[in-house]
Amino acid sequence: MAIVNEFLTLETKGNCDIIDITKRLQLLLSKQKMSAGHALVFVSGSTAALTTIEYEPGLKQDFTEMIDRLVPKSMRYFHEETWNDGNGHSHIRSSLIGPSITIPFGDGEFLLGTWQQVIFVDFDNRPRTRKLVVQFTGE
Amino acid sequence: MAIVNEFLTLETKGNCDIIDITKRLQLLLSKQKMSAGHALVFVSGSTAALTTIEYEPGLKQDFTEMIDRLVPKSMRYFHEETWNDGNGHSHIRSSLIGPSITIPFGDGEFLLGTWQQVIFVDFDNRPRTRKLVVQFTGE
Amino acid sequence: MAIVNEFLTLETKGNCDIIDITKRLQLLLSKQKMSAGHALVFVSGSTAALTTIEYEPGLKQDFTEMIDRLVPKSMRYFHEETWNDGNGHSHIRSSLIGPSITIPFGDGEFLLGTWQQVIFVDFDNRPRTRKLVVQFTGE
Repeated sequence: MAIVNEFLTLETKGNCDIIDITKRLQLLLSKQKMSAGHALVFVSGSTAALTTIEYEPGLKQDFTEMIDRLVPKSMRYFHEETWNDGNGHSHIRSSLIGPSITIPFGDGEFLLGTWQQVIFVDFDNRPRTRKLVVQFTGE
Repeated sequence: MAIVNEFLTLETKGNCDIIDITKRLQLLLSKQKMSAGHALVFVSGSTAALTTIEYEPGLKQDFTEMIDRLVPKSMRYFHEETWNDGNGHSHIRSSLIGPSITIPFGDGEFLLGTWQQVIFVDFDNRPRTRKLVVQFTGE
Repeated sequence: MAIVNEFLTLETKGNCDIIDITKRLQLLLSKQKMSAGHALVFVSGSTAALTTIEYEPGLKQDFTEMIDRLVPKSMRYFHEETWNDGNGHSHIRSSLIGPSITIPFGDGEFLLGTWQQVIFVDFDNRPRTRKLVVQFTGE
């Protein structure tokens, strides 16, 4: 068994930019020479999140509308009163969806559904360069 | 230390069917001859989710009402316009609650609270046969 | 590689008490003599949750308002009709946010963002003594 820390750099547009990272994760997995184990994907930052979705244009829009409805941009945020950076909603969305996901693999392949992709969502209100941790545990 | 992939097959009714899988997980754990570690439970699919709850009839209904309120079935979903399968809400609910959960164990027992059960929730709009990954990491 | 179960005891005020546990996790990590790995933090209980946030007074209030909006205290809960303990909302909030988080580390340090803290949120409607599991897997 071994644990290996890899990193993934992403250029995002912010504003609920939804990025399918499945292929990049598969590429990193194929480098590990591991058969069974899991990848922990974690964003070191407080205005983004990770989850899975069927990555197609309709659901990207539906996900955006859901988060706009549950955690609207145009509300009063107390964060704003101190920091004036306009991204109070970005922080709260990140806490709600969560900053990480763990995906199991077997026979060297992620055990994802055919229509299930791993997405990184950047909730910040501006383009960002993001560095994700991808930690492989396996044998 | 070892990593073992097990699988759990479930027959669900769909439509927010909430299934307590705690006992089936405990049965799988008892087969592992592991003392300390964790089980990663993951659904390979994009219309279901995993979380914990006190599994009793009242909270099952309360959970259903919460998700109906936050991600209603009767809304316009862009997913629908392309796919016409009536389950746009199922996908979005899955992305919100999340497709996995990790539960630690010690002395061969899950470290769950007395009133805390692991649930699989099938948000799809029809009965499904589901195959969950249950990956044990431990020693 | 090794797996070690540690525990963290917290005294909370309940009622969406948000507690920054980052430093206590770092203290536990420094005891492990591990370089790379991850900590699984898990609450054995069904009325609390774990996530990350930029821990500052404004966002603590914003998080509280978000959860009050999505899962209000003053609603009818079916849980209440059987149990009469006034905490139906606490259970549902816990299922929504989730009872655990996994944080990777490298070179003996958590790979958190500078403005990202790990928080324990007690949604119960009264003060509680909580025992969290902190499971380290690493080498």
